[in-house]
Amino acid sequence: MKRLRLGMVGGGQGAFIGGVHRFAARLDGRWDLVAGALSSDPERAAASATDLGLDPVRSYPDFKTMAQAEAARADGIDAVAIVTPNHMHAGPAIAFLDAGIHVICDKPLAGTEEDAEAIAAAVHRSGKRFILTHNYTGYPLIRQAREMVAAGELGTLRLVQVEYAQDWLTEPSDGKQAAWRADTTRSGKGGAIADIGTHAFNLANFVTGLTPSHLAADLSAFVPGRPVDDNAHILMRYESGMRGMLWASQVAVGNENGLRLRVYGDKAGLEWAQEDPNRMAFSRFGQPRQIITRGGAGATEAAMAVIRIPAGHPEGYLEGFATFYREAADLITAEYKGEPTLLPGIVEGLDGVRFVSACIASAETGVAWIEL
Amino acid sequence: MKRLRLGMVGGGQGAFIGGVHRFAARLDGRWDLVAGALSSDPERAAASATDLGLDPVRSYPDFKTMAQAEAARADGIDAVAIVTPNHMHAGPAIAFLDAGIHVICDKPLAGTEEDAEAIAAAVHRSGKRFILTHNYTGYPLIRQAREMVAAGELGTLRLVQVEYAQDWLTEPSDGKQAAWRADTTRSGKGGAIADIGTHAFNLANFVTGLTPSHLAADLSAFVPGRPVDDNAHILMRYESGMRGMLWASQVAVGNENGLRLRVYGDKAGLEWAQEDPNRMAFSRFGQPRQIITRGGAGATEAAMAVIRIPAGHPEGYLEGFATFYREAADLITAEYKGEPTLLPGIVEGLDGVRFVSACIASAETGVAWIEL
Amino acid sequence: MKRLRLGMVGGGQGAFIGGVHRFAARLDGRWDLVAGALSSDPERAAASATDLGLDPVRSYPDFKTMAQAEAARADGIDAVAIVTPNHMHAGPAIAFLDAGIHVICDKPLAGTEEDAEAIAAAVHRSGKRFILTHNYTGYPLIRQAREMVAAGELGTLRLVQVEYAQDWLTEPSDGKQAAWRADTTRSGKGGAIADIGTHAFNLANFVTGLTPSHLAADLSAFVPGRPVDDNAHILMRYESGMRGMLWASQVAVGNENGLRLRVYGDKAGLEWAQEDPNRMAFSRFGQPRQIITRGGAGATEAAMAVIRIPAGHPEGYLEGFATFYREAADLITAEYKGEPTLLPGIVEGLDGVRFVSACIASAETGVAWIEL
Amino acid sequence: MKRLRLGMVGGGQGAFIGGVHRFAARLDGRWDLVAGALSSDPERAAASATDLGLDPVRSYPDFKTMAQAEAARADGIDAVAIVTPNHMHAGPAIAFLDAGIHVICDKPLAGTEEDAEAIAAAVHRSGKRFILTHNYTGYPLIRQAREMVAAGELGTLRLVQVEYAQDWLTEPSDGKQAAWRADTTRSGKGGAIADIGTHAFNLANFVTGLTPSHLAADLSAFVPGRPVDDNAHILMRYESGMRGMLWASQVAVGNENGLRLRVYGDKAGLEWAQEDPNRMAFSRFGQPRQIITRGGAGATEAAMAVIRIPAGHPEGYLEGFATFYREAADLITAEYKGEPTLLPGIVEGLDGVRFVSACIASAETGVAWIEL
Repeated sequence: MKRLRLGMVGGGQGAFIGGVHRFAARLDGRWDLVAGALSSDPERAAASATDLGLDPVRSYPDFKTMAQAEAARADGIDAVAIVTPNHMHAGPAIAFLDAGIHVICDKPLAGTEEDAEAIAAAVHRSGKRFILTHNYTGYPLIRQAREMVAAGELGTLRLVQVEYAQDWLTEPSDGKQAAWRADTTRSGKGGAIADIGTHAFNLANFVTGLTPSHLAADLSAFVPGRPVDDNAHILMRYESGMRGMLWASQVAVGNENGLRLRVYGDKAGLEWAQEDPNRMAFSRFGQPRQIITRGGAGATEAAMAVIRIPAGHPEGYLEGFATFYREAADLITAEYKGEPTLLPGIVEGLDGVRFVSACIASAETGVAWIEL
Repeated sequence: MKRLRLGMVGGGQGAFIGGVHRFAARLDGRWDLVAGALSSDPERAAASATDLGLDPVRSYPDFKTMAQAEAARADGIDAVAIVTPNHMHAGPAIAFLDAGIHVICDKPLAGTEEDAEAIAAAVHRSGKRFILTHNYTGYPLIRQAREMVAAGELGTLRLVQVEYAQDWLTEPSDGKQAAWRADTTRSGKGGAIADIGTHAFNLANFVTGLTPSHLAADLSAFVPGRPVDDNAHILMRYESGMRGMLWASQVAVGNENGLRLRVYGDKAGLEWAQEDPNRMAFSRFGQPRQIITRGGAGATEAAMAVIRIPAGHPEGYLEGFATFYREAADLITAEYKGEPTLLPGIVEGLDGVRFVSACIASAETGVAWIEL
Repeated sequence: MKRLRLGMVGGGQGAFIGGVHRFAARLDGRWDLVAGALSSDPERAAASATDLGLDPVRSYPDFKTMAQAEAARADGIDAVAIVTPNHMHAGPAIAFLDAGIHVICDKPLAGTEEDAEAIAAAVHRSGKRFILTHNYTGYPLIRQAREMVAAGELGTLRLVQVEYAQDWLTEPSDGKQAAWRADTTRSGKGGAIADIGTHAFNLANFVTGLTPSHLAADLSAFVPGRPVDDNAHILMRYESGMRGMLWASQVAVGNENGLRLRVYGDKAGLEWAQEDPNRMAFSRFGQPRQIITRGGAGATEAAMAVIRIPAGHPEGYLEGFATFYREAADLITAEYKGEPTLLPGIVEGLDGVRFVSACIASAETGVAWIEL
Repeated sequence: MKRLRLGMVGGGQGAFIGGVHRFAARLDGRWDLVAGALSSDPERAAASATDLGLDPVRSYPDFKTMAQAEAARADGIDAVAIVTPNHMHAGPAIAFLDAGIHVICDKPLAGTEEDAEAIAAAVHRSGKRFILTHNYTGYPLIRQAREMVAAGELGTLRLVQVEYAQDWLTEPSDGKQAAWRADTTRSGKGGAIADIGTHAFNLANFVTGLTPSHLAADLSAFVPGRPVDDNAHILMRYESGMRGMLWASQVAVGNENGLRLRVYGDKAGLEWAQEDPNRMAFSRFGQPRQIITRGGAGATEAAMAVIRIPAGHPEGYLEGFATFYREAADLITAEYKGEPTLLPGIVEGLDGVRFVSACIASAETGVAWIEL
């Protein structure tokens, strides 16, 4: 399979998510990281490039220079990974798209609806791939869950209960990550809803195949002085008649990264938790609960397509993330043959930003229902 | 310890909850069942009395006759257990209270606020004990959870996430139990919220020591033709600033009796599930999660007081229920020495009925906030 | 159903297992405790009798007097529960059997093979019921496991892995219970193998329907000065070709009462743990694992026969023990109509004592194979 | 960090473990696969090389040619991964070591003691690194477990209970993997003991820091016609006084890859399972059980050194395997500065082969104790 060339914006020394993207890009051997604008601090950018073995010529001082230079090279990058803070996605995303380079962008899409719409416009005018790393949908059992729902194995869906509980913002924030997440000029007005609520929202939509028509959100900032929400209680209604609850919290002590999904139809229900991602409970009404394992008995085609190693050999977070990079390579090398993809893109990105806006609007009007 | 005499109203052959009360009354050897009005059907009442070895003279055709007769006997019952359907609690409760007999009543208190208020009035004028069997608060680890919260081990409470998920009403109802629950003239206007939502509400209140000031409820009846809710999504706010979510469902396929409670403060969090009642997760912020076992290391005084057998020897639903009967006996034999009791009574009963009313009022007004 | 009269030998104030037998006898309302020789200490015997509400006339100074007196009464006891330390079972068991009174005896049967044989002889000459409380076989899912094995659902059995891990003897013993267990003149030569190993052995035999033909045992006493084993590693072979491992330990730190059973055949496997007794994993080869719940979907007749309350409402240790008392009452009131019983009796008791002897013999000969 | 050049022997199209080694080599970006003798079938070798993007010049027809050619190149490989069937390790291992090339070899070391000794001799005369991929010791919590044991947190060790249960050989074997494992001319005389028993043995040794002095093994071949064991029941004794049990099975229906380790000392115990590798139970005597998470509260230095992403973001099998490749690179680039390594090597490889021989010797002599 053809190897592709990857660039990166952001992700310098010490950045968490940049490192994750690099692990993910490496695992399946489809990408070589060859260029970057790794930090807005020139020294840090250079040091990071050295660490990563980049040709110094392709370590750029800023994303604009990089987009132009790489577009001009015969061996220019095939795609760029944008791993800057949320409010800094739009600039590089638009620059690379307009330079004719595919974009793999960390979530959420943007800090404001304006930025989000601008990115969307660039996607449409460029015709380039835009992949948003709601990486949890890369887990094999999440692919299987979606496929089982779509095949009608749960019957008509009635309920979705989704939650994403963490505790790392239990106390007043310190540290760089906590800082920019809590800074509304950088992260946008959403706190937990933007950071993790969008993941939960995307996951529920992905598996059910449905997006809420309305939501009502009770947002809290439990830590004194915190300018954004650190906890969200959300009710959701769907045109199909399904209803749901979404809970996102960064102050739920004892929860590390507790993304959990439960979906119930009139025939069956399924339950999955990200911290134990190789198992899924599936219960047909009136029958014993089954424990479906990643790649084990009962694995579906969609699951098997993204499994690397046999059942009982746990795959984790990086593998699901790597599936995004593998599928991105598949998409790009096939040169837009139009096949549908399971990877989230600009549509899901806009949905996420609207979700955040709707939550804030609801919270500001006494938890009123807001149409999405 | 003195043995007491128990009567029972309802609970004839085939009744589920009547049998549970009898198991519970027997376990600790503090009660003898000696009288009953076990069924409104005379033949069934008589047959049931025979099964239970009652003196035929003390098998009564109706609760009024029973209340008068037992009050007049020198060896009359010390207390009566009322295990009739929800909407039929008020009649016997008032009759026995007014006859000077203590009452142990199944939950919820009543089907309407009017009935609930009438019972409350009888409790107050009689001065007799009134115990409402929100039995889940009899579990040792729930007693411990309350004690830990009260001792400040969780710090200032921020969040309560409580849920009660079942699936037995997934399909259109049949069977006697399903029938009366679904019949608003018998059960009142609440479905899942009355039947199990009140348990969840009571459990959250018991452990946190707090009652919501406001709630907003989205009620659903997913099964066509069902006149009452079979699923409830509820947001809760508390004067202290705590917030919560309550989910009650009888259509969540794969859930048998999934009552689960999670409470988070600014120092620690705890998590407990009724189907695995001998373990509780307790996490202090920044420390490894602890698994606290019933009667194991770290057991508190309140837990030890209601434990019968050592850690590792599971106690279950009946033991927690039996604790209600044991403590009821303790209360009665001490003849109102005024000690505070952890057993729920008329206050909690009224809270539950108001909870149901508030949910319905909220649902009827577009999920508006209702003051409790 | 007819109520029966129960006597008790041992079980005075502070005794653990005597209390357990009384809870178990009360739960289903089939027994009244009316007589006892509750302690060899007359004062303690009297005080215990008062606590339990016994008629002082029927509180006896010793078991011999009690056996004679009760046999002579028109309203004498139907059965006696023997809950003395292991090495003191034979005296009372033989006395009551010879007096024509049924015996319910705590396990293991005796501390020596001589005592065991003497009890067996008394059982045979008396024709009375003798029930040995290997109570773990009273759990509904254990009944179901046995039934599933017998029905061939696992195919030909290949493996049984059974373990019973505790930690309460991790440090040098103190306390009364620890003392007599560690005293070979009182408990016999077996330590953990007698106390809990016999339970594990019995459980494996009960579910598989097979008893080993040979075993090899490596016994350890990890705590300095302990005269008996506190850990046993045992290999087992069966005539059918099945093989097994048994691990019993009282020094496995972190284990409270970890009795666990796994059975594998050529078609399916099952796994169960006493501390989570309402769930059992069942896996057919090549199919997803099922979680079978007590009384839930897939419950068999044998399980349903011993279930008191619906799935999702946990039953525990006392309920399984109570099933022994309920079934003992059924057996006795049917007056030996010859129906087979699942309750362990003298055969299982002798098996257990021989198991202990074989373990010791093996350990003393370099872990040689010993025929059972 | 310097990137290294990797060659591979074996691992052509369709081979499971070759693919695993390649994932592992890629994840951390320290290795480029540049050469291979990927199959003994020339066509398959060539096709596999093309798939992997190797320069055709460096796709060799056999390992001998490869070892010579690569040793002669200025840009020759730094190390070779040997992923041939067990009985075919010795040839290539010796050839590359003698050519001065470091070796990363799949486990077990060899099918016979003769081959094992020959490899050991080559390791010693070459002075090159030899790394044996007992990859389960790459899991962060296993590193932490070893560190906690070494630091005395468990006190004096008493017990190790280790098991490795699978079910994929429940029925008569088919498929290539099953075939060579079951063929004693290819795999050696060990079946499950060689294939997975050596992993369990190595894991127990790694964490406890102890190797048994004696073992006794009961080996079974439950499937008719299978020439090697598919189940092993093993007792172990240690000079320190510790004792252990090891169970390895490939016929335990319902188990996918159930490697589980439990270690108990006189102060504390720990329990870990490979299928849920991001959690470990740790219990100090008399205190509540703690759930230690990978990278969470309580993580030790040794764990943090091999963690890529934060707690709550599961790492799995490939990450642990990749740690071997990362550490191999670290070892090689440091040019033998003599630092101790946690990676298993020739010593552990010889231990594993002797373990298999001892098991077979014990089984052939009536489960006698064999000195290791």
